[in-house]
Amino acid sequence: MKIQEALSFVERLFVAAGCSSNHAKIVADVLVAAETRGIPSHGLMRIIDYLGMLEAGKINVNPNVKIIHETVSTAVVDGDSCFGMIAGTMAMELAIEKAKKAGTGWVAVRNSNHYGIAGYYAMMALKFDMTGISMTHANPLIAPTFSVSRMLGTNPIAVAMPTKNQPPFIADFATTPVARGKLAIKEQRGEKIVSGLVQDSEGNQSCDPSIITRGGAILPLGSDYEHGSHKGYCMTAIVDLFSSIFSGASFGPFVPPQVPYLKPKENAPGKGMGHFFGAISCDAFQPVDEFKGNMDLWIETFRASIPTKNFEKVLIPGDPERLFEEKTKREGITIIPEIEKNIKEIAVKYRVDY
Amino acid sequence: MKIQEALSFVERLFVAAGCSSNHAKIVADVLVAAETRGIPSHGLMRIIDYLGMLEAGKINVNPNVKIIHETVSTAVVDGDSCFGMIAGTMAMELAIEKAKKAGTGWVAVRNSNHYGIAGYYAMMALKFDMTGISMTHANPLIAPTFSVSRMLGTNPIAVAMPTKNQPPFIADFATTPVARGKLAIKEQRGEKIVSGLVQDSEGNQSCDPSIITRGGAILPLGSDYEHGSHKGYCMTAIVDLFSSIFSGASFGPFVPPQVPYLKPKENAPGKGMGHFFGAISCDAFQPVDEFKGNMDLWIETFRASIPTKNFEKVLIPGDPERLFEEKTKREGITIIPEIEKNIKEIAVKYRVDY
Repeated sequence: MKIQEALSFVERLFVAAGCSSNHAKIVADVLVAAETRGIPSHGLMRIIDYLGMLEAGKINVNPNVKIIHETVSTAVVDGDSCFGMIAGTMAMELAIEKAKKAGTGWVAVRNSNHYGIAGYYAMMALKFDMTGISMTHANPLIAPTFSVSRMLGTNPIAVAMPTKNQPPFIADFATTPVARGKLAIKEQRGEKIVSGLVQDSEGNQSCDPSIITRGGAILPLGSDYEHGSHKGYCMTAIVDLFSSIFSGASFGPFVPPQVPYLKPKENAPGKGMGHFFGAISCDAFQPVDEFKGNMDLWIETFRASIPTKNFEKVLIPGDPERLFEEKTKREGITIIPEIEKNIKEIAVKYRVDY
Repeated sequence: MKIQEALSFVERLFVAAGCSSNHAKIVADVLVAAETRGIPSHGLMRIIDYLGMLEAGKINVNPNVKIIHETVSTAVVDGDSCFGMIAGTMAMELAIEKAKKAGTGWVAVRNSNHYGIAGYYAMMALKFDMTGISMTHANPLIAPTFSVSRMLGTNPIAVAMPTKNQPPFIADFATTPVARGKLAIKEQRGEKIVSGLVQDSEGNQSCDPSIITRGGAILPLGSDYEHGSHKGYCMTAIVDLFSSIFSGASFGPFVPPQVPYLKPKENAPGKGMGHFFGAISCDAFQPVDEFKGNMDLWIETFRASIPTKNFEKVLIPGDPERLFEEKTKREGITIIPEIEKNIKEIAVKYRVDY
């Protein structure tokens, strides 16, 4: 499917579901960006859950997204139960506006929902010669080091930094060793996984990808204490705190599920799902040209580091996604047949041409 | 040794070495804080290298630490080859001042040196009802995923967040699975280490802690690609970029060594070692009382998560250091005999009573 066709389809679908044309365009842009960058787990396969959430009354299709507090360099945005992309893009635009005046801008969001790929928002800062930061918490699936309780999500961070002639530095990663989606794929295929990714209900490491459906949990980055899992736990906890305490959203085990068939925890403290965004103007620290030139030098230096014998070259954060993007821009995106079947059914239901 | 005695000794020693009384007090405070918090690798054992660097003319004992650029929420500080603590405390104080006015403050430092424990600076923000952030790059010992080249340091991050009745949340961790100092101790004892911490000169994982003295490298957090080491590599790279590109310091493989017997790389781009600091006022986002109350609730919730059977309770970032601090405040600090011997020799050399 060509990228333009995908954008048009998703936009028409979300308009049919009740979104304004502007909001539908934003949702489409973020979902299709995931497909073009090779992260299909955050792409069109999410449409089913998104519309399911909407039908279940958990997402507000006509939200009043508003700033509820601000200072020179900060703001808090309430998403009014919107699609995460709506609050996300508005918050990142606001962070950029603040950075133009104050050097940096920092915006926390609450009452939001799944916002797609973290990198999308971080990358918005690049064309303003700014570093962009984006993070969000997610459904609790991770047990802290020494625990069997699922307290934290796969909580991604994205950092995008502008360059001169090199492609930009774009790190966009879950702070955990594995994502839920990858476990599901392994489970469907009946495959085992390496140890160090999940544990069973008693806290023993497991090679069974389905163990998290039976009281197990995903491990923090580092896998176990001897390999620094307490550091991975710290990182994931910091993303949760920044997404919840600054914004007033629910935290950790209380983050509302992003699928229609799971109920949110009762009496959860805080308001819905949260995100945190930052924009840092290059010229708040260095002359823009020098900043971007030094970024080039950093990338060239790291690209020239010696690869291990089985690998051609050392990767710079953002390389794999950019290469995938170049391919999809030429060849279009490929939707897995199973997902395509579901999407076609939805298209019929909402009377939209696929 | 009582804490007050340690502070007094280090202060007198650094005055004897040529520091102003004020600067010596700051260096002493940071080094002794490492001892009281149970991080002796960043404590008094560093005195030898610090004074060695000074004697070798690599540290400036009378630095002109100055702000070279600033905006409403940001600044760049040049440390003039000072002890890292001098630029570090000044930069963090500046970040706090900016946060009082602009909601947040962000200060990058260049031309600095080893600054001790990252957490010290982050914790400075707590008494102003602010979140403190501190990070620094370090000597290159880490190979990126798929590489055999040592490109990055153990690059720590510290985040301190204020609370109401609970002790503050204080995460202070190297972004790598193991620190250089721990490998050295294992090597001295003739012990092997678990695989997943270091690799040999060809990129094969190794259990030999001395391998990094023979062309090996420390692995990123996550150990290998299957366990998410590319995410650990991203984290460590981000700390390096924030410490160098924002400040104009040298980056990655060019970070100057912090021991007198290693030469800095010739023609290194950028100026010396760099750090990055942030201060975020609670009330830039939420009413202070609500922010701190929610922090308490987060901590209480995580502390109540179910531990694995061999453990008594789940730890909150900052717990181990706080418990150690309570002990050292009662009982004083313990210096390893070998280190104490070295320090006594230095005391004689500088004619300071130990």
